[in-house]
Amino acid sequence: MLNQQILANLTKIVGKENVFTTKEDLICYSYDSTPIDHMPDVVVAPVKTEEIAAIMKLANENRIPVVPRGGGTNLSGGSVPVAGGIVMALHRMNKILEIDTDNLTATAQPGVVTAAFHQAVEKEGLFYPPDPQSMFMSTLGGNVAENAGGPRGVKYGVTKDYVLGLEVVSPNGEVIRVGGKTIKNVSGYDLIRLFAGSEGTLGIITEITFRLVPLPEAKRTVLALFDRLDDAARTVSGIIKQRIIPTTLELMDQKTMELIESFKPVGFPLDAEGALLIEVDGSAGEVDRQIVIVEEICKTSGAREVKVAADAAQATQLWTGRRSAFGAMARNALQVLAEDATVPRSKVPDIVREIQRIAAKYQLTIPTLGHTGDGNMHPNILVQSNDEEELKRVDAAIDEIFRAALDLGGTLSGEHGVGLAKQKYMDWEFNSSSLNMMRAIKKAVDPNNILNPGKIFLRGE
Amino acid sequence: MLNQQILANLTKIVGKENVFTTKEDLICYSYDSTPIDHMPDVVVAPVKTEEIAAIMKLANENRIPVVPRGGGTNLSGGSVPVAGGIVMALHRMNKILEIDTDNLTATAQPGVVTAAFHQAVEKEGLFYPPDPQSMFMSTLGGNVAENAGGPRGVKYGVTKDYVLGLEVVSPNGEVIRVGGKTIKNVSGYDLIRLFAGSEGTLGIITEITFRLVPLPEAKRTVLALFDRLDDAARTVSGIIKQRIIPTTLELMDQKTMELIESFKPVGFPLDAEGALLIEVDGSAGEVDRQIVIVEEICKTSGAREVKVAADAAQATQLWTGRRSAFGAMARNALQVLAEDATVPRSKVPDIVREIQRIAAKYQLTIPTLGHTGDGNMHPNILVQSNDEEELKRVDAAIDEIFRAALDLGGTLSGEHGVGLAKQKYMDWEFNSSSLNMMRAIKKAVDPNNILNPGKIFLRGE
Repeated sequence: MLNQQILANLTKIVGKENVFTTKEDLICYSYDSTPIDHMPDVVVAPVKTEEIAAIMKLANENRIPVVPRGGGTNLSGGSVPVAGGIVMALHRMNKILEIDTDNLTATAQPGVVTAAFHQAVEKEGLFYPPDPQSMFMSTLGGNVAENAGGPRGVKYGVTKDYVLGLEVVSPNGEVIRVGGKTIKNVSGYDLIRLFAGSEGTLGIITEITFRLVPLPEAKRTVLALFDRLDDAARTVSGIIKQRIIPTTLELMDQKTMELIESFKPVGFPLDAEGALLIEVDGSAGEVDRQIVIVEEICKTSGAREVKVAADAAQATQLWTGRRSAFGAMARNALQVLAEDATVPRSKVPDIVREIQRIAAKYQLTIPTLGHTGDGNMHPNILVQSNDEEELKRVDAAIDEIFRAALDLGGTLSGEHGVGLAKQKYMDWEFNSSSLNMMRAIKKAVDPNNILNPGKIFLRGE
Repeated sequence: MLNQQILANLTKIVGKENVFTTKEDLICYSYDSTPIDHMPDVVVAPVKTEEIAAIMKLANENRIPVVPRGGGTNLSGGSVPVAGGIVMALHRMNKILEIDTDNLTATAQPGVVTAAFHQAVEKEGLFYPPDPQSMFMSTLGGNVAENAGGPRGVKYGVTKDYVLGLEVVSPNGEVIRVGGKTIKNVSGYDLIRLFAGSEGTLGIITEITFRLVPLPEAKRTVLALFDRLDDAARTVSGIIKQRIIPTTLELMDQKTMELIESFKPVGFPLDAEGALLIEVDGSAGEVDRQIVIVEEICKTSGAREVKVAADAAQATQLWTGRRSAFGAMARNALQVLAEDATVPRSKVPDIVREIQRIAAKYQLTIPTLGHTGDGNMHPNILVQSNDEEELKRVDAAIDEIFRAALDLGGTLSGEHGVGLAKQKYMDWEFNSSSLNMMRAIKKAVDPNNILNPGKIFLRGE
């Protein structure tokens, strides 16, 4: 519990109506999209940078943990206040400050919902590619802090590829500004990309300037069904060898399609081992050219059926199916653990086979889908009970999945972050020298360890 | 001078033939492409990571400065050993270790010459876009350390956008490995992008895994001549508003063309205020479509003449002209100071006018060209003598150019780095909190300040 003086000071900074201490309120900020939860001592909702700076000064002087929070949608425990303290809720900082159509940039506050940002820039003929599954609830600040990805990553990259400028409040309450509207910038160390993906452990992001790209004129979608999952996976390199980088290149396995069909049927077959959902975008002529090549490669790679969506409505239907996968899984389990083991593109068939082997070994259902074009797979472990024996099997399976991904030259996380969920695997991916350097940076930037403590690195090390 | 014991230990590590101490040898490693020079105490040329680790341990224990060096082509003093000590020459580590056509990656040692790397990956139908002007001499390690750019940056980004994995030796001689062949990776802090652009102050890069893209099928070049420089600059946003991002979008002013024509004539007119050299690439059909639109926009924006290169030979001729600009300038001056003041794209007309005003004010010749598509301009100050009065005017002009760039929302450096040349301007761009955070990171990673000391930040602060 924080003492009354601290609460009074917080109230002075943000106003009484923006300080929350009742149990009902605190519960709302105690969890994210993982099964992990922990109660904060207080929730504050600042509306400007100066307030955040004042809160951080107060917290730093009194060694109070602070956890910044956007939409709370993250999948690794990043916004769970495991050490208690202050949750800094950023939903009131939700303004798009500028869309600059000459420089193809937009500047926004951290609490803007990702999908709202998409909509606003698309109205100006511009495009912000990062599209995390949670985009209708996630916020831009959270996206930057977690370096969110999404299906379009294969062609367009991830959140940090679009950040040109940042305003950040440091752990001791100072306002840092780096970058701006220039595309090229090599002045000093790249603090932008250090903050991006730092999971709220190095600073509170208060303003972001994004690079945008022109909105593609056209897009088209193909669904290719395969009797053998390996053929689906092989098709991916076939497409890329033809010098086509699709906007999205999504793989679904049989179990995933089965669950989708039992939930919101869109016509996926139940007997195909795998499906690729492929979108290309660009100029109208270029899209037409590419879709023909993609269709051809799918066929020669062993697809039993290739459906090109005739119009936007048909394409939307296919994508709705893909997007409902997580909901379909959630309906069939007490809990869905969505992992994001990521491997080099060529190793997708291997990791999918490994996941199937592990599922069988531990008698678990693990439907797998993912952004196969960039090797970012999502095995989803369906947990049916809180039974200790089952949870042991689940833990062992997750351990083996990450071991397999790393053995295939992959990484622990393509887009969900480390947070609490993957801390124990960090020394599987990094040697102690690399981890020590990361820890030294954390210590240099946040000597009192007040910003999102207990994340990324194991405690006490 | 280093004592004999240190030299003996260095010799033990890399062999007698790879330790250089004669004055003639040391002079060769005392300068880069700026007018700044300083003699090292010794030059060592290791051939593998273990040797570098051993050298760093020795240097760290004995507090000896170490300056890593690639091609020595950099433009901000980054590889000049201003504190003496060891120059670590990386030219022997010049192997391309793998080109992985399935994953579109290549792994190389730091001493590989950039253009040789281009050639090797293009043979496999792949493309490594970063193309610094110095690419025939610069090395990949230096490119990463300086985060080199080039004309293609407007469409393809800069060096750090292509680095997926790094092996780095830390200042205390430990081997750090981060990233790999996965496109997406959010595991831990982004040390890759912290090392990239850190100008050799945080670690010695010993191995790099690059992301590649498919080699575009076709490319075409347009030269557009303008009576008024402003019209040329305005054309840039016109093109981008048509949803076309050209591969390169280069602006040359009248003085630049005049110097090129007096050196290696390619047919640039002497009376046009400005010219745009534009290249588009992609599929053959797409390139044909784009070139027509680009031609049209140039005409409607006031170009007096638009020449589409009929074939590769004509295009090469135009680009040879552009590439000979620096040579043409060098012939006409005792010294050319190539700056890289960078502004948001829409401010290109303003910075060009400012540069012209400053040139007139200080009676200097400052031909300007640059990557106008990304606002990365290169004003080149032609210095005619070592006369103190002239050098004073030169210094004052450079101060004003950087002031102007920052006032227009720009940055000190788009692609050349800070090094020694721009240290004194760092607190014009960054507030003290931001600089302190960068310094804290340097101190955390290199507590004894032995790696490229005296760069980026002013000494003694």
